Amino acid sequence: METAQHEKRNVAQKLIADHLVGSDMADMAGLAPGSEIGLTVDQTLTQDATGTMVMLELESMGLDRIQTELSVQYVDHNLLQTDEKNPDDHVFLQSAAQRFGLWFSKAGNGVSHPVHQAHFGRPGATMIGSDSHTCAAGALGMLAIGVGGLEVAMAMAGQPLYVSMPEVWGVELTGELPPWVSAKDVILEMLRRHGVKGGVGRIIEYHGPGLDNLTAMDRHVIANMGAELGATASVFPADDAVRDYLAAVGRPGDFTRLVADEGAEYDVTEHIELSDLEPLIARPSSPGNVVPVREVAEENEEVSQVVVGSSANPGVRDFAVVAEILDGRQTSQRVSVDINPTSREVLADLIAGGWLTSLVTSGARIHQSGCMGCIGMGQAPASGRNSLRTMPRNFPGRSGTEEDAVWLCSPETAAAAALTGKITDPRELESLYDMSCPVPQMPERFSSVDDMLLAPLDPEEAAKVELVKGPNISSLPEFAPLDDDLKAPTLLVMGDDVSTDEIMPAGSRVLPYRSNIPKISEFSFSRIDDTYFERAHATDGGHIVVAGENYGQGSSREHAVIAPRYLGLQAVVAKSFARIHWQNLANFGILPLEFVDPSDHDAISQGDEFVVTGLRDALREGNQVTATIGGRDVTLRHRLSDRQVEMLIAGGRIPYTAGGSGA
Amino acid sequence: METAQHEKRNVAQKLIADHLVGSDMADMAGLAPGSEIGLTVDQTLTQDATGTMVMLELESMGLDRIQTELSVQYVDHNLLQTDEKNPDDHVFLQSAAQRFGLWFSKAGNGVSHPVHQAHFGRPGATMIGSDSHTCAAGALGMLAIGVGGLEVAMAMAGQPLYVSMPEVWGVELTGELPPWVSAKDVILEMLRRHGVKGGVGRIIEYHGPGLDNLTAMDRHVIANMGAELGATASVFPADDAVRDYLAAVGRPGDFTRLVADEGAEYDVTEHIELSDLEPLIARPSSPGNVVPVREVAEENEEVSQVVVGSSANPGVRDFAVVAEILDGRQTSQRVSVDINPTSREVLADLIAGGWLTSLVTSGARIHQSGCMGCIGMGQAPASGRNSLRTMPRNFPGRSGTEEDAVWLCSPETAAAAALTGKITDPRELESLYDMSCPVPQMPERFSSVDDMLLAPLDPEEAAKVELVKGPNISSLPEFAPLDDDLKAPTLLVMGDDVSTDEIMPAGSRVLPYRSNIPKISEFSFSRIDDTYFERAHATDGGHIVVAGENYGQGSSREHAVIAPRYLGLQAVVAKSFARIHWQNLANFGILPLEFVDPSDHDAISQGDEFVVTGLRDALREGNQVTATIGGRDVTLRHRLSDRQVEMLIAGGRIPYTAGGSGA
Repeated sequence: METAQHEKRNVAQKLIADHLVGSDMADMAGLAPGSEIGLTVDQTLTQDATGTMVMLELESMGLDRIQTELSVQYVDHNLLQTDEKNPDDHVFLQSAAQRFGLWFSKAGNGVSHPVHQAHFGRPGATMIGSDSHTCAAGALGMLAIGVGGLEVAMAMAGQPLYVSMPEVWGVELTGELPPWVSAKDVILEMLRRHGVKGGVGRIIEYHGPGLDNLTAMDRHVIANMGAELGATASVFPADDAVRDYLAAVGRPGDFTRLVADEGAEYDVTEHIELSDLEPLIARPSSPGNVVPVREVAEENEEVSQVVVGSSANPGVRDFAVVAEILDGRQTSQRVSVDINPTSREVLADLIAGGWLTSLVTSGARIHQSGCMGCIGMGQAPASGRNSLRTMPRNFPGRSGTEEDAVWLCSPETAAAAALTGKITDPRELESLYDMSCPVPQMPERFSSVDDMLLAPLDPEEAAKVELVKGPNISSLPEFAPLDDDLKAPTLLVMGDDVSTDEIMPAGSRVLPYRSNIPKISEFSFSRIDDTYFERAHATDGGHIVVAGENYGQGSSREHAVIAPRYLGLQAVVAKSFARIHWQNLANFGILPLEFVDPSDHDAISQGDEFVVTGLRDALREGNQVTATIGGRDVTLRHRLSDRQVEMLIAGGRIPYTAGGSGA
Repeated sequence: METAQHEKRNVAQKLIADHLVGSDMADMAGLAPGSEIGLTVDQTLTQDATGTMVMLELESMGLDRIQTELSVQYVDHNLLQTDEKNPDDHVFLQSAAQRFGLWFSKAGNGVSHPVHQAHFGRPGATMIGSDSHTCAAGALGMLAIGVGGLEVAMAMAGQPLYVSMPEVWGVELTGELPPWVSAKDVILEMLRRHGVKGGVGRIIEYHGPGLDNLTAMDRHVIANMGAELGATASVFPADDAVRDYLAAVGRPGDFTRLVADEGAEYDVTEHIELSDLEPLIARPSSPGNVVPVREVAEENEEVSQVVVGSSANPGVRDFAVVAEILDGRQTSQRVSVDINPTSREVLADLIAGGWLTSLVTSGARIHQSGCMGCIGMGQAPASGRNSLRTMPRNFPGRSGTEEDAVWLCSPETAAAAALTGKITDPRELESLYDMSCPVPQMPERFSSVDDMLLAPLDPEEAAKVELVKGPNISSLPEFAPLDDDLKAPTLLVMGDDVSTDEIMPAGSRVLPYRSNIPKISEFSFSRIDDTYFERAHATDGGHIVVAGENYGQGSSREHAVIAPRYLGLQAVVAKSFARIHWQNLANFGILPLEFVDPSDHDAISQGDEFVVTGLRDALREGNQVTATIGGRDVTLRHRLSDRQVEMLIAGGRIPYTAGGSGA
């Protein structure tokens, strides 16, 4: 069995094998799903909403120059400049990219994922990024994983990424998409079948003859929204379609073929017949609420906004097809048609192809290139009115509007609603407007607009650069080592499923403080108990919080651990933890402890004193610790590796690494 | 003398004579500057930041349908949609425009002034608008005046506009602009010579042979920034340049020649030799701080942002000249080049001319069409870093950045800074880049993109429309008649020169509440005393405030009277008032009283009780009132006309008009 695997590998296995840390593992013996593996990281990607913290981490670590093959800092999230905070962050990020040897993509150049794919994507490489849609690069035969910011910082410092070995989920595609159905409908079909947790613990690998009918940008659409399935990564082979793509972006020499071995097997299997698909749409307010558009069309749902753009439908084709559907026609008077060109390169191609003129003259608003509405930074819809978007997510309120009604769909379905003013199956356009489905002709060579993509400085120049910090940018606080004897009050007792959105909200009010831990800490736990900040602030010597099951579910944002840590949080005692948040807690020196007897949770009240002595030895010697909480003895468990115990004792991964105990 | 005036009229006099209310005044006898005149209003313009209140006023007045020749509601200010408030306002405005019979220009269609000029501008017409740059329409030979919102509402209801007869200031232009100098430098020269109060109480009329070298859009630039001189209006003749313009926007039939009579005279005269002008720039933070660019260039000022757009440089030519300067070159790495196309029509022409491609490929960010950064709704600069803008205003903090450094200049000077990364005399580009000044070739026919410009509904359809109010949109509060006996505490004692920015701030935090008086009232006087709101709220039966000289200077925003009135403000006692704010106070039923002896101001303390009895009779019978303030008798004066006294007694202009006492 081991030999067979070795001889007949799928693409995911080849990518893993090529980057495994420790040569003895190179034959992938014993790599059962769930076992921990280390991977070397070739490339990293950071964006501005998470990147400011990553750069402050590099500063805090005293890094001189990045150790990756290449790392790129993008500015695509916080582009709305209503005061100085976002532009100050842009200036800071430019100085940090220059200081540490990163590429820098200036504000408004475009969304990280498609720009990265066009300029830096390379079959066979690994990449991690502090953005959950980093997985889109799987379209080129890369292994690309979204992670927390400190993981990216550590990769830039030369350390491997440790992950649990995922299952490989082979999805065989056959046939060809019918008219009015496009790549977005393929990933919506996956979500329709499996929901938003269907991909957890898995790499999704697409294969089969249906791939011949999907371009690299079609695959980018599908790989991007693997994040919505909860998958670790999505992988496509590097085949002729990838070769053609790299030629079209002017980098034919960067192509390497990377395909599964004949007869390679998968841990889990799936089949999609493309010709059976129809236009799909995710109802508010989850990407998993997928139904056929025709079903919704019967409900006569009026639409007040259509947004085309974002990382989920970023290619020239995705805008061009909308332009050709709208061309010479008038959009509905009740609809705001918002076009968000992915990048300035895409914009240049839309101009050259005549598509931008079609969009403008048929009634569209053209916005700057970036993420914008997808992360609630602009284009919020009117209250309670339907907004159809080609974006990847529609969680409640994410658009910026508290009572929103956001639907996710293909560009074709979006264009149909723009014309009719209600949710319409795009196939109906054939009879309504006497048209057939347009097939936009892509340019042989995409525009290359690279004046906003600044190359790294050479090391001598880089060393001279000073980080430029506006008044809102603070350095990363220094964190003290773990106390051996801990005596601290319980400031919060929470229930199950507390999300990182509740621990630290996002949105246009909070995001501008992503580079200011003292300020953003004021929002900590504000959705749970708005007295937490003041009480934590008033407590000398630290505190703990208590929670139920699945503590820290949701986004990977590390501000949800750094901010409470800054306010003195020393331990979280919970029934269980969500995976990424658990790792973030350990990375930033907050002790994650679990109740051995979950019923102990109910006996604890706010204000109860938590006492434990001889903590360092206890952690080193076993996985159990006895604490006194509110005067009662409670047995607690930890799941930390030896390395993580030492990291915690040092005060977190940064002081641990600075102390010379790197990988 | 009267006969001579009648026979030899300048353009301003002709416009006034044609719209004077009362036929006996048609010969303009006795119209000395300063005397009150009434003018019929042909057209009105409202934008969204002021228009929501205007529409609520129309609702409150019970208007069925507008009485003007045409009125247009634009949506160009509050385009940043970070939550539901702005898009809810857009939906409301669309419903109100339909209900009352206005044209409606949808969000993102473009800046009101150039869109209005292209679609509706008509030589010989009068227009008022609730936007201070309404005066730009003077470029076509219109008499166009910026006023408070209620004045516009009253004009829509068929009432005339009452203004003081202005002086007419004839500015004779001779010669031709040299290369690298453009229309913006003409108005900057006016500001250099006369400062920001130079035009107060005047209509500026441009004439002379130099006009032959200025297009209608050049004149629009000059007329627009008449607002910065404090002028009532700016006027140009409707000559061949206007004829050519109307042909180029597809409305040749709307041209009527309107030129000054041979030998017409002016109250004040001025001369500018265009060939003597050089590139000028207004330093931070006033449009009046104008100096030659060459002087600043010696100071080696680094630039971090260049913004091209806004109502002050709105024409295709103003973007095209930047595009041709940048074409094939790379902008400085340290500069964010923000392009804000005035309208979707301008964008269409920039695409067609190849200019948009030049801008994109040389490093510009392309933003949606609208006012944006000019009113602090986006593109705020980084702290303390120089931002060069083709906009009309640079008051401190207006950009959205507290510590900003905004400079105002021509497109040519902006483009030079984009290339070099510092403030540069554009004439230097000849040697620096071996280029001569480009002269972009304008299209014979400008694009007409009118799909977002919705025509009024016919009266029957209009009557069926319901106003759509999101949760943030409140109706205009009802205001009670003036009490005959007033007994109220003094909640604030202020000094001289309190501006409307201090009474009611603008900016991205406050502007979204422009349609919600209860909410926006919380910001009243917050920059002067942040306890005012709570104290006013806690005071039953109203209150008064006391101020020094020039109370209410600055913007015309009527929220600065409606919000305090909502909180119970019944009278302002001041040494003197700014003109528009004084009118707004009277319009909304707040009694504006002046100290006969200014030194009485100093004897008043916060909390002092203000008492006056038999107020109605006192106001009707004379212009003096005796009040007791803090136990002392104080003699006060009012400057109200008989009509205004009755209006105040009724509770303001809306209840007065509703009571049948219209014009």
